[in-house]
Amino acid sequence: MPRVVWLTGLSGAGKSTLANAVGKVLLAGGVHACVLDGDNLRHGLNRDLGYGDADRAENIRRVGEVAKLMMDAGLVVLVALISPFRADRRRARALFAPGEFIEVHVSTPLEVCEQRDPKGLYRKARAGEIAEFTGVSSSYEAPDAPELELDTALLAVPDCVARILRLLEFRGVALPIARSGSFPADPQQLAHARKVRVPFTDRRRRGDGS
Amino acid sequence: MPRVVWLTGLSGAGKSTLANAVGKVLLAGGVHACVLDGDNLRHGLNRDLGYGDADRAENIRRVGEVAKLMMDAGLVVLVALISPFRADRRRARALFAPGEFIEVHVSTPLEVCEQRDPKGLYRKARAGEIAEFTGVSSSYEAPDAPELELDTALLAVPDCVARILRLLEFRGVALPIARSGSFPADPQQLAHARKVRVPFTDRRRRGDGS
Repeated sequence: MPRVVWLTGLSGAGKSTLANAVGKVLLAGGVHACVLDGDNLRHGLNRDLGYGDADRAENIRRVGEVAKLMMDAGLVVLVALISPFRADRRRARALFAPGEFIEVHVSTPLEVCEQRDPKGLYRKARAGEIAEFTGVSSSYEAPDAPELELDTALLAVPDCVARILRLLEFRGVALPIARSGSFPADPQQLAHARKVRVPFTDRRRRGDGS
Repeated sequence: MPRVVWLTGLSGAGKSTLANAVGKVLLAGGVHACVLDGDNLRHGLNRDLGYGDADRAENIRRVGEVAKLMMDAGLVVLVALISPFRADRRRARALFAPGEFIEVHVSTPLEVCEQRDPKGLYRKARAGEIAEFTGVSSSYEAPDAPELELDTALLAVPDCVARILRLLEFRGVALPIARSGSFPADPQQLAHARKVRVPFTDRRRRGDGS
């Protein structure tokens, strides 16, 4: 059953990491999957677009249309895209039938994203070298009712991956790995995901009493 | 082995018919395939574009990028797109490694396409109701060296489908149907293709002496 998992959140929140990790587990389980990564698309399909509001909207519109084409071709599509505005995400969702579109808010707080700063973009944005940077000089509108919310400052990546897989299975995606008992995922499949440092800066918020 | 089959030719030449027929045979044979149809894309991804030269170029650029994304996701992608200009097709081909991009010139002559006129577009173009219509008021630049040329005025659709499948197999696409001996294709799979009338208006050109 093809589906679209739409990961929205700040730069550095962990969207691409989660999309790639889930994609690897799905492919290893024989489920046809692919990742549409906003950053990569800006080198290809969307390389004619900037970061102003109109271009951001067009960026998201195109990614939604491509996700739809790929889902119609039988793929589970993992979209990693900041997609900061509610209206744009609503338009993307509207392309799909109820249940097909799974919105995942990767809600890692700004301060954690900025501390990670994997591409040095926050530093540049604070220095005024990048205009209209989401979270710094452009707003991020959090989803009102995402299907799932994952804060990678509180949850380890394998845990996030497991929750996405569980939701996919609930939505009709047959996951051989899950059924074979090695759920959430083969550790080797998650080697990639481990590359991301998950800083547990506030252990109390994990709710484990430590 | 994923591949892109890029069908170029006039409106009414048979591009969509061939793309859909090949796609059905591939899917029936367990090969993941999808069709990117220029007409359909104009209702979605490319609905912001017109028919002037710049918009046509952008139309083709986007279809090339999406075909690349889908091929990278493991699909055999069948593109049905007039794509009248050589430079635009060359740019699309440049996105792919040698051997991945298969250009098929559906070379059905203008007079046959116009006689078929499946959507009544030639009539409208001749009446001046459609501007910049390829073959009437806008030029079509035939490929210099397509991987395959198919004139559906001379070849029946099942024969065209068989030739495309043969080329795909030659280019590394494993076709279970071909190997099982029922090649070129199961007749039922080609039911769709039969809907197209194939007028043999000039039998001498068939080379069968009739």
